[in-house]
Amino acid sequence: MSLVIDCHGHYTTTPPGVGAWRDAQKAAVAADPAFVGEKGTVHVTDDEIRESIEGAQLKLQRERGADLTIFSPRASWMAHHIGNEHTSLFWSQHQNELIRRVCDLYPENFAPVCQLPQSPGVAIDSSVAELERCVNEMGFIGCNVNPDPTGGFWTGPPLHDRYWWPLWEKMCELDVPAMIHVSAACNDNFHSTGSHYLGADTTAFMQALTSGFMADFPGLRWIIPHGGGAVPYHWGRFKGMAEDQGWDFAGLLDHIWFDTCVYHQRGIDLLVDVVPVSNILFASEMVGAVRGVDPETGNHYDDTKIYIDNSSLSDDDRHRIFETNTRAVFPRLALP
Amino acid sequence: MSLVIDCHGHYTTTPPGVGAWRDAQKAAVAADPAFVGEKGTVHVTDDEIRESIEGAQLKLQRERGADLTIFSPRASWMAHHIGNEHTSLFWSQHQNELIRRVCDLYPENFAPVCQLPQSPGVAIDSSVAELERCVNEMGFIGCNVNPDPTGGFWTGPPLHDRYWWPLWEKMCELDVPAMIHVSAACNDNFHSTGSHYLGADTTAFMQALTSGFMADFPGLRWIIPHGGGAVPYHWGRFKGMAEDQGWDFAGLLDHIWFDTCVYHQRGIDLLVDVVPVSNILFASEMVGAVRGVDPETGNHYDDTKIYIDNSSLSDDDRHRIFETNTRAVFPRLALP
Repeated sequence: MSLVIDCHGHYTTTPPGVGAWRDAQKAAVAADPAFVGEKGTVHVTDDEIRESIEGAQLKLQRERGADLTIFSPRASWMAHHIGNEHTSLFWSQHQNELIRRVCDLYPENFAPVCQLPQSPGVAIDSSVAELERCVNEMGFIGCNVNPDPTGGFWTGPPLHDRYWWPLWEKMCELDVPAMIHVSAACNDNFHSTGSHYLGADTTAFMQALTSGFMADFPGLRWIIPHGGGAVPYHWGRFKGMAEDQGWDFAGLLDHIWFDTCVYHQRGIDLLVDVVPVSNILFASEMVGAVRGVDPETGNHYDDTKIYIDNSSLSDDDRHRIFETNTRAVFPRLALP
Repeated sequence: MSLVIDCHGHYTTTPPGVGAWRDAQKAAVAADPAFVGEKGTVHVTDDEIRESIEGAQLKLQRERGADLTIFSPRASWMAHHIGNEHTSLFWSQHQNELIRRVCDLYPENFAPVCQLPQSPGVAIDSSVAELERCVNEMGFIGCNVNPDPTGGFWTGPPLHDRYWWPLWEKMCELDVPAMIHVSAACNDNFHSTGSHYLGADTTAFMQALTSGFMADFPGLRWIIPHGGGAVPYHWGRFKGMAEDQGWDFAGLLDHIWFDTCVYHQRGIDLLVDVVPVSNILFASEMVGAVRGVDPETGNHYDDTKIYIDNSSLSDDDRHRIFETNTRAVFPRLALP
């Protein structure tokens, strides 16, 4: 029997004290863009956390047959474009500490991944420091990296730029992976969880493929969420481009994994058929972008375990997707 | 027997006189951003056009068994972000006139679609005028619309904004469709034909889905190229979001078609299995983003007819994708 590890869950159901703290911070920085303020306190009790988790993530975990969720702050709320570096730092620290509390309350059900205090135009150093704090002092096993902290304007440096290297080095040193995951779009052209998320996934993949920079960081590991954006569907396009241009497509797969957040059977069938099984990690991003029930199947769209169970994968391959691959990508994941 | 109509071809093999004219214009506007200049002359002979087409598009058409290509100016060269409205106008006029010449030389093999003289921050009026000129005076049957004339910064109005409405109205009046197709990215974060093209396809679809604006333009027809970006692969995600939010997913399919520019068998299998056959148009975008041969199959990646032939479609459905649907979307297409 496999453990079923869901590598992509966000705390989307936080108690009201979290939003209240953030709203006050947003109001302050809207009034004064240079606002620093102080970290202060997020008022949330353990009981509130229990209530917010037990009726949602934990309940669904049990109903759907997952054992453990790798859990990080709500992606759309990272909103690195808001305010300044202080805004992002205090907010990220609170969000990460909240994730730690969830994992302390349910150590068998959740493992912590942190957000980083990125901020447009600001050096990556504070993100490196927060990653170090989360991993070394709080037992985190990975991080989320936002490839576009501007929220949909893409005016920062691409992921192969030297700007990012201190972060990649620290990740290698700490032996933790990153999920490359944008936050909410503040650009009217993009729908956050529709076009922005999926476009960013494909963009991150292309930045890695065209630059080949990951070869310089042998232990660097990325998870491209949402089934890899458009990548598996256009596998021939990317492979063909790489052959035309001399990019190392096969070598990139030493560094990149795709999750299974694809919300219909045919999409998962394509994913597991096209992408090597060794590069796929089970995930659902549940209580996320799509919360309803598919009238054609009677199942929740985001109950991705059903699609994996129904796919033509062998039991051995399913075991790798549910457990083995994820353990290898997250070596700091301590399991019962 | 079906005619095989390829609805998505660009003139990517233009004779040297075209690039020479454009290079001079780019140099002039780089030296003086307000440069107007004059339309001047693009020096290209009919023999040069014949040579550029017969060894490429026409040769491949014959080899691959297509009958006719709906043909437009090179998409990556539209580059609406370069210069000012005059830059874009003169360039677009030349490119469209060149397409007309190709279609006059090979009336049985090519049908003309125009680019529009879009320019960031400039009213859509000149695009409306050029569309009218192309359709009414030169027999064009459709247009390409760039949803992001900034070249990857997405700072213009989304496609549902009133900014665009005169164009949608004119398209309805003239009864011509648009392919929603970006041009080259000038943003280092994006690879033009990799992430920018596919991201824009998904973005355009989401703008239409979230706004529902197309319902106000009953005859408005869009083709989303490159197999619809990430849309078919994430069909459940979009359908589920639409159900959650009350967006009219089914109604949108009265207005939107996906082409078959997906360069591997499994991708096409997903496309034709997930998207209603009535919403699929055959296309290859050949001599385009991927020009090599797939070592696994021995076929050119972009020889998409093979994938359609090998798919599980019925002959009747194949006929719709190759011919009938495209005739319906392009009613001005006159066929032998």
